[in-house]
Amino acid sequence: MENLAEKKKKTEIWFRSLREQICKSLEEAERKFENSSKNFKRKKWYRDPSRKQNLGGGEISILKGKLFEKAGVNISTVHGKFSKQFCKEIPGADKNPNFWASGISVVIHPLSPLMPAVHMNTRFIVTQKQWFGGGADITPTYKNTKQSKDLAKIFHKNLKKTCDSYKKGCYKKFKKWCDEYFYLPHRNESRGLGGIFYDYLNTKEWDKDFVFTKNVGLTFIQTYLEIIELTAKNDWNENDKAKQLFRRSRYVEFNLLHDRGTKFGLMTNGNTEAILMSLPPLASW
Amino acid sequence: MENLAEKKKKTEIWFRSLREQICKSLEEAERKFENSSKNFKRKKWYRDPSRKQNLGGGEISILKGKLFEKAGVNISTVHGKFSKQFCKEIPGADKNPNFWASGISVVIHPLSPLMPAVHMNTRFIVTQKQWFGGGADITPTYKNTKQSKDLAKIFHKNLKKTCDSYKKGCYKKFKKWCDEYFYLPHRNESRGLGGIFYDYLNTKEWDKDFVFTKNVGLTFIQTYLEIIELTAKNDWNENDKAKQLFRRSRYVEFNLLHDRGTKFGLMTNGNTEAILMSLPPLASW
Repeated sequence: MENLAEKKKKTEIWFRSLREQICKSLEEAERKFENSSKNFKRKKWYRDPSRKQNLGGGEISILKGKLFEKAGVNISTVHGKFSKQFCKEIPGADKNPNFWASGISVVIHPLSPLMPAVHMNTRFIVTQKQWFGGGADITPTYKNTKQSKDLAKIFHKNLKKTCDSYKKGCYKKFKKWCDEYFYLPHRNESRGLGGIFYDYLNTKEWDKDFVFTKNVGLTFIQTYLEIIELTAKNDWNENDKAKQLFRRSRYVEFNLLHDRGTKFGLMTNGNTEAILMSLPPLASW
Repeated sequence: MENLAEKKKKTEIWFRSLREQICKSLEEAERKFENSSKNFKRKKWYRDPSRKQNLGGGEISILKGKLFEKAGVNISTVHGKFSKQFCKEIPGADKNPNFWASGISVVIHPLSPLMPAVHMNTRFIVTQKQWFGGGADITPTYKNTKQSKDLAKIFHKNLKKTCDSYKKGCYKKFKKWCDEYFYLPHRNESRGLGGIFYDYLNTKEWDKDFVFTKNVGLTFIQTYLEIIELTAKNDWNENDKAKQLFRRSRYVEFNLLHDRGTKFGLMTNGNTEAILMSLPPLASW
């Protein structure tokens, strides 16, 4: 597909529709496992709050529930000009600072320390070049127990299937990229048990790249629903909870010290609330 | 005083002695107000853990008490060569990368949301130049209540007295420096209610500069003991505690996103545990 306006429209509609699916699924899980009527609360924001300029914006959805201590789903579609300094770092922006970007970002911090935290983000970026990027990763409280490893296995198995149906061999590459990305050098440890991460994806077969990006989002939520089923009724104790709060402190450290998206957002006057939605409801050091 | 070896010895001994005073005072407050027998736990670290090279190191002291949810007191004396990139940023290191530094760093997160969190750090740095740096600041849960403002007034009044006895007018300068430093641009808010901050202090009267730096540490602990007396018995509720955890989230954001010392430490392979000792025992987003 070659019509750029059409691509923008299609991706934006997709991210919005995925947001609906994810929010609905998580709300249903709240009802099913905790008999809770907690819902996502939605908030719009604009890159130019005065709305004199149309620079795009987004919608934050946050659920503070009984099953999910905090779940955040952001969608945004933004456009404008990159700063000069930033142009050097972004493909296709060296000669022309105009950009357009649409995406979805999801972070789920469950109440139960035996239900892993998960993150998923997919996006379509347009400068003088255009590409998809994204990924999904899993962060259980315990990285070494059989239960955590089994859950991570399911997560990886399903992502691998999605990768395989897109392009043989890409799972291995995207898994490695994820391991390298979600790493805390100052702690000499990984953030969690990995997943996939990809960027600058443009194989010249736009429809296929788009289907893959859609499937990453769908696989993520379907797999997480499976993981919820397997863990929602597990008993945990105060010691497990303390370990979860400890694991979350590393999550905070990663996001504030290392995450490119967080740094990028904050340094370019993004919406702070949306950017830092990923931070856990409670963490301890 | 002109003998550099003597200066190094004196400052190192001072920071160690101040550490003893601060730890002892806080342990006594634990006994007095909470009838608690909790003590600081001490841990040594070396910049070269293999100890093949002598690059200095430090001692972390942490109290997890009933009055103080977490209090950390670090001292360190380190030396070696700055990395090339770092040499450009540090006065007196452009032609010679050798440095020596000794200092103390204190962060106190009380259990009670009505007792302010406080931070103090003083240091003596030697490159081809030499200088003192440091400061102290106060972070109450509520920034706008009369009680918080009154406590901040005491904190500032005592620091002003210490500044005045050193050099007329320097309080104003150091207060402004503190306000500018402890500021979160992405939240458009201050970390707390300020204090003083100074750096590159070298008036050619070393003894006076040293006395000032000693007095900053002494004023800090004496003033905090006064604040403890005024707040330890105040009743608080769950709502106050929630607000405190919220305030602490901003503390984390500041330290991980903006604090020069934290960034410097992590980027130069400092001791992660010592550097991140400042992070609160519990924080919420």
